[in-house]
Amino acid sequence: MTERILVNQLAARTDGPVSVSGWVETVRDQKKVQFVILRDETGAVQLVNPATRPDPEKTDQDAAALALTDTISNLAHGTFLTVTGDLKHDERVKLGGIEVKLTSLEVAAAALPETPIAADSSMDKRMDWRFIDLRQRRNNLIFRVSTTLEHAMRQYWIDHDYIEIHSPKLMSSPSESNAELFSLDYFEDKTAYLAQSPQHYKQMAQAAGFGKVFEIGDVYRADPSFTSRHATEFTSVDAEISWIDSHEEVATMQEELLAAAIQAVKEKHGDEIKELFDIDVVVPALPFPRIPLAEAREIVKSRGYDNPREDGDLDPESERQVSAHVAEHFGHEFVFVTDYHAGIRPFYHMVDEATGLTRSYDLLFKGVEITTGAQREHRIEVLEKQALEKGLKLEGLEHYLDFFRYGVPPHGGFGMGLARVLMLLLGEASIREVTFLFRGPTRLAP
Amino acid sequence: MTERILVNQLAARTDGPVSVSGWVETVRDQKKVQFVILRDETGAVQLVNPATRPDPEKTDQDAAALALTDTISNLAHGTFLTVTGDLKHDERVKLGGIEVKLTSLEVAAAALPETPIAADSSMDKRMDWRFIDLRQRRNNLIFRVSTTLEHAMRQYWIDHDYIEIHSPKLMSSPSESNAELFSLDYFEDKTAYLAQSPQHYKQMAQAAGFGKVFEIGDVYRADPSFTSRHATEFTSVDAEISWIDSHEEVATMQEELLAAAIQAVKEKHGDEIKELFDIDVVVPALPFPRIPLAEAREIVKSRGYDNPREDGDLDPESERQVSAHVAEHFGHEFVFVTDYHAGIRPFYHMVDEATGLTRSYDLLFKGVEITTGAQREHRIEVLEKQALEKGLKLEGLEHYLDFFRYGVPPHGGFGMGLARVLMLLLGEASIREVTFLFRGPTRLAP
Repeated sequence: MTERILVNQLAARTDGPVSVSGWVETVRDQKKVQFVILRDETGAVQLVNPATRPDPEKTDQDAAALALTDTISNLAHGTFLTVTGDLKHDERVKLGGIEVKLTSLEVAAAALPETPIAADSSMDKRMDWRFIDLRQRRNNLIFRVSTTLEHAMRQYWIDHDYIEIHSPKLMSSPSESNAELFSLDYFEDKTAYLAQSPQHYKQMAQAAGFGKVFEIGDVYRADPSFTSRHATEFTSVDAEISWIDSHEEVATMQEELLAAAIQAVKEKHGDEIKELFDIDVVVPALPFPRIPLAEAREIVKSRGYDNPREDGDLDPESERQVSAHVAEHFGHEFVFVTDYHAGIRPFYHMVDEATGLTRSYDLLFKGVEITTGAQREHRIEVLEKQALEKGLKLEGLEHYLDFFRYGVPPHGGFGMGLARVLMLLLGEASIREVTFLFRGPTRLAP
Repeated sequence: MTERILVNQLAARTDGPVSVSGWVETVRDQKKVQFVILRDETGAVQLVNPATRPDPEKTDQDAAALALTDTISNLAHGTFLTVTGDLKHDERVKLGGIEVKLTSLEVAAAALPETPIAADSSMDKRMDWRFIDLRQRRNNLIFRVSTTLEHAMRQYWIDHDYIEIHSPKLMSSPSESNAELFSLDYFEDKTAYLAQSPQHYKQMAQAAGFGKVFEIGDVYRADPSFTSRHATEFTSVDAEISWIDSHEEVATMQEELLAAAIQAVKEKHGDEIKELFDIDVVVPALPFPRIPLAEAREIVKSRGYDNPREDGDLDPESERQVSAHVAEHFGHEFVFVTDYHAGIRPFYHMVDEATGLTRSYDLLFKGVEITTGAQREHRIEVLEKQALEKGLKLEGLEHYLDFFRYGVPPHGGFGMGLARVLMLLLGEASIREVTFLFRGPTRLAP
């Protein structure tokens, strides 16, 4: 009996010999009996061993039994091992009603006796030892949820004939602005910049006639912010589609996408999320509510909050107020805020001439912005005019502007931070908790 | 009739009014009749317009008809437009047996009249104008094949309970060696490095108890090579699994993965690949052949090629010879070369003490190496010894080595270049052709 059995497959097996591999979560080393809680990627199981302690009065003690007892007494938390033993169903065992009575134990890699962190260590300390922190059941669940969320999004796109792209992150010119940009020495004394978003190259795919594209990949911001929502490297979820009439088609795609992805998460992990995060995953009803920015500002005001931003955009507290209003009046966790004035949007958003309003939206989820979406300006003469009006130099944008000189369809898309969605979905306080290895101004390791 | 119809949906429709959007591939502007080949992301269709030329002798000419004729006469290649017209099935039309008789034409974005490249331009020129180059049908197919390939691989992993990770590409210390590493200024005078592979962090996920992980993401090599197989930024396909006994479990997973992915490509695109690339997609039989390196060297020698490498590893021509041998004797396009001596492998490969051979393999596909896979050394004291033997300083590896001090299961995995697989699958001569936007020592734009 050497084939490894996953812990979550034990309960369905009949009593008998099994082999299980995992790591030591706890050891209860009692005089007469030893208990080990062994965890693997699927669950935890109790191992039991009747202790054989050295007794000078007994001359016939079993050397193997003595050694096994001694090994268990010295097991450190986190030691990875493979055990064989007899599976026994026993209703009295709290942990799943099963236990494994040990016959042998093989240590794969012993942990140092002092674990440097505990579950209640500070976040920064836990980040130092992230690989130990991630062994916690709820942290493991975060990344299984992330896996399901991403796969469901990709499945939606595949079902709708999107092409997946991997746009380069090394660029010869800044993507959107010179601010918050990492640069590095490239070959032949050239300078390369790390992409802040795949925005330009998603648009290039439109000029290339790809029709509909998506990308999930890392992007970089030399952003000195220390908020719970910012990172210097993060995974961006992006899509871009051709032949739209306005941002509305982008919003429709994104709400369908999110509903499908959250549905998949609820089906696969809903119960476990409830158990470990005390969160009810709600599959959002379609369509999501839409509120023009001007109306959103009135709502914030009527709720007694004075938005301090002079440019008319919503500050974080205003976003929370708008979402609170939407939750109360529409029972919805999402809201598209629309009709942003061109003055507070990038140069490449399409602007309605009559109103000066962009064809764009922000998407709020539980009070936090997770997306900006827009129809892009594809008419080169208008695009150049808008860039100049924003004080940009056309020289720095030459490669980008070329995309519009040889034909391009009307198009638009959105970018969404994966970690923000996860953070809000699971009710976590910071994207640090839902990022495999967080990167920030003072965090570059491990 | 304003709803856009995709070109590949036209044939199944009955004759009548339709609206189609795409770009101008060719214009045949004859005196009495005008033909436009319009392409969208799904195909091409012939548009036809009975020309109305200005005739001073006719006073009752239709202004709209005159304008439409004039517009078509001036259409540049690549102009994106939306047309409405009457769909008509007509067996005499070579292109799919259908055509659309125009009633109106709306230009979304006119292309400049001189297209800077043609299909037969040099590769470097085509790279300068990649977004135009990508409009070619076969280039579009490359990225649809890539989409299918990736999705099928992820589906395999999802079906086998893998966790998807996004490991950071900004690192505080070099990942494998100081060679070929891009560095950049980070905050507070720190230096960051761009990851050459997700290797270390895939291994961290093993210490974290994730069990099985995968990642498809971009990695970076400051590699001055100008070969057809190298890039400074490329998409790496990676997986890592716990509780293996040798590299053999990794190889088994990888061959199943590739067979499933190529099967999906064959089903979805096999006919079109045959038409446009003249390649028969072959779903590889399982298991792939395995040949120890020593035997591979003998094979190369017996085929009359003198491998110049003194370290005993295979040079590119030797790899082609081995694959040729395997194709002739086993009828297989893949071969695992195994049993590499520790001297030609990285310090973290597990070495069999008795033989000095690593538990690792290279995977060759049609004569080119696409993967190195291995069981990793997880015993910290052995790992440190092997690092020192390779002349590495342990200080630079401290974060990595920490992963092994607090418990870790036996584990292994592989890394595979997505573009190499695509290049070989489609019989292309260079990864430049199958990369959305290639990055090399002299190529950083667009």
